[in-house]
Amino acid sequence: MKSRTICLASPPTGKLNLSHFDVCDTELDAPRDGEVLVRNIWLSIDPSIRLRLGPDRPAGYLPPIQPGDALSGLALGEVLDSRSDGFSPGDVVSHMMGYRDYAVIDSVAGGLGGAGTSTKIDSKSFPIQWFLGPLGSSGLTAYVGLFDVLGIESTDTLWVSAAAGAVGSIAAQLAKLHGCTVVASAGSADKVAFLRESLGVTRAFDYHDGDVGALLAHAAPDGIDAYFDNVGGGHFAAALDHLNTGGRVAMCGAVSTYGASGSMPSNLFQITAKSLRLQGFRAGAYNHLYDDMRALVGGYLQNGTLIYQESVYDGLEQAPAALVGMLNGDTTGKTLVRVGQ
Amino acid sequence: MKSRTICLASPPTGKLNLSHFDVCDTELDAPRDGEVLVRNIWLSIDPSIRLRLGPDRPAGYLPPIQPGDALSGLALGEVLDSRSDGFSPGDVVSHMMGYRDYAVIDSVAGGLGGAGTSTKIDSKSFPIQWFLGPLGSSGLTAYVGLFDVLGIESTDTLWVSAAAGAVGSIAAQLAKLHGCTVVASAGSADKVAFLRESLGVTRAFDYHDGDVGALLAHAAPDGIDAYFDNVGGGHFAAALDHLNTGGRVAMCGAVSTYGASGSMPSNLFQITAKSLRLQGFRAGAYNHLYDDMRALVGGYLQNGTLIYQESVYDGLEQAPAALVGMLNGDTTGKTLVRVGQ
Repeated sequence: MKSRTICLASPPTGKLNLSHFDVCDTELDAPRDGEVLVRNIWLSIDPSIRLRLGPDRPAGYLPPIQPGDALSGLALGEVLDSRSDGFSPGDVVSHMMGYRDYAVIDSVAGGLGGAGTSTKIDSKSFPIQWFLGPLGSSGLTAYVGLFDVLGIESTDTLWVSAAAGAVGSIAAQLAKLHGCTVVASAGSADKVAFLRESLGVTRAFDYHDGDVGALLAHAAPDGIDAYFDNVGGGHFAAALDHLNTGGRVAMCGAVSTYGASGSMPSNLFQITAKSLRLQGFRAGAYNHLYDDMRALVGGYLQNGTLIYQESVYDGLEQAPAALVGMLNGDTTGKTLVRVGQ
Repeated sequence: MKSRTICLASPPTGKLNLSHFDVCDTELDAPRDGEVLVRNIWLSIDPSIRLRLGPDRPAGYLPPIQPGDALSGLALGEVLDSRSDGFSPGDVVSHMMGYRDYAVIDSVAGGLGGAGTSTKIDSKSFPIQWFLGPLGSSGLTAYVGLFDVLGIESTDTLWVSAAAGAVGSIAAQLAKLHGCTVVASAGSADKVAFLRESLGVTRAFDYHDGDVGALLAHAAPDGIDAYFDNVGGGHFAAALDHLNTGGRVAMCGAVSTYGASGSMPSNLFQITAKSLRLQGFRAGAYNHLYDDMRALVGGYLQNGTLIYQESVYDGLEQAPAALVGMLNGDTTGKTLVRVGQ
């Protein structure tokens, strides 16, 4: 059996474009004991994969993807054939072998980025692709960053960057619902309108409209108590300058630095001067909080309190365009590719 | 009454030297209600004052010292005259009006850097200047950084930079006594010999002997779990590269960056990739832990388990030389100026 995959044509340096990708054909073996054959339906397009494609990959992160190799990422698919006790044809599963039509998946072995485990999705109340977004890893990332890493309180003024994105849009809304004063930033006038009018954040700004530190100071004249960082670089440096004493930073992502060669902000001493606490985190270490998150976010989704937007590209061959578009800031909310139905 | 003070002659940019300072004469009023007149005996020479002298002062830190103004810093002195109920002539007090012979001090008002509060020192067991070092703010800084900020455990491999300094030498020893594997770095062969032979750390290196990251990797081939940062800059970047997943950083000081303008390739994404936790702190927020710290450190000092070294300069007029020497890395242990007896 054959599967089409999105594979890396050449390692990018700097900005990603469509020429870095190919559609490749791969041969699939029949599933062996413990494995399932899956037809993918939805692919999650996540910025962090950029870090696995180029020669400037950070050490200690996920393994690199070599030229000729298939990309991998979070996906939802339907089980076509199962040699695993827990799964039957027709089940919908979440797994890590995205960026392809079909996959044979080890249902037992752990680990991301390759033969990742599969998890059965059993939803009657929500469209299944929401289990890649607000009820999936995007929702978990927002939830963990706010409640576990930052420990937000209703008296906090919180800044969320990339707040029109998959994680940021959920984080901004959950913080608002928790009672926080939420300052949100994004990269276009349309996104800022979305933040203000649809998500109802307290203040919003387009970081292109001036110096990000000055824009932040204007939006939060009394400083910020916490920063949910999805952008890194100059955004991170601005946060250090404008955090109040005892402030906290959840270092979730740094999309402005992916594929860019930047230098370390020179205001790191602010961390000592203002007794700041910074914590990096990856939602994958918090799978035990999925139930709590789904109870909270699912409730808000069901009663319409929480807005969820998605940018959908149709067809596997559009996955490179989806990835490039998302990294360019062209998409709002969760970026998805619909492979089949 | 007159007092000689060390005052700022010109704001330094870059490296500090003796020409940046003058000895000035100031007129002292007699103490009013709530005030005490103090004759200084010992001055504590601390690197952080560098941040108050130049135009490149970090925002949010202690107020700047302007040309013509007296420097201030931690000191011990003898009460000569008291208009405050809690203090009598002959008492030894710790306060923030160092860098001068005599001072009139408000014994009640709080705040650092000017009219700081005075605290009576009552010691029969230890030389009084130890209350500026291992039993004073240096000891508290080491204690808080290890036990409160890093939460060290006996299984940790900990790196302490500037480990031959006032704070680092205590931190390295307390961590060793706690059971940690301690990697210590300093800036000369003599200091490295001191770390190995006197302090008994597990591994020690001179950061001049090569790339600090390579030296660290050699000293801690399995990575480090925690980093007590007194240096910042390239040392900090090396720590991010070599910390294990879940590692912690106590951001105590960044002496390599004081008065320096440098940028370096950014590896801040390591914080996210490896779920690191970084926390800046200032011992002044932990005065409630003085008793705990003095019980622990005092016990180790009394039975000779903990080594305490000091570099003493004699005479107020030597205070600039002490400060310049310490920032140049010429001193070992606590740097002090003896003003009188």
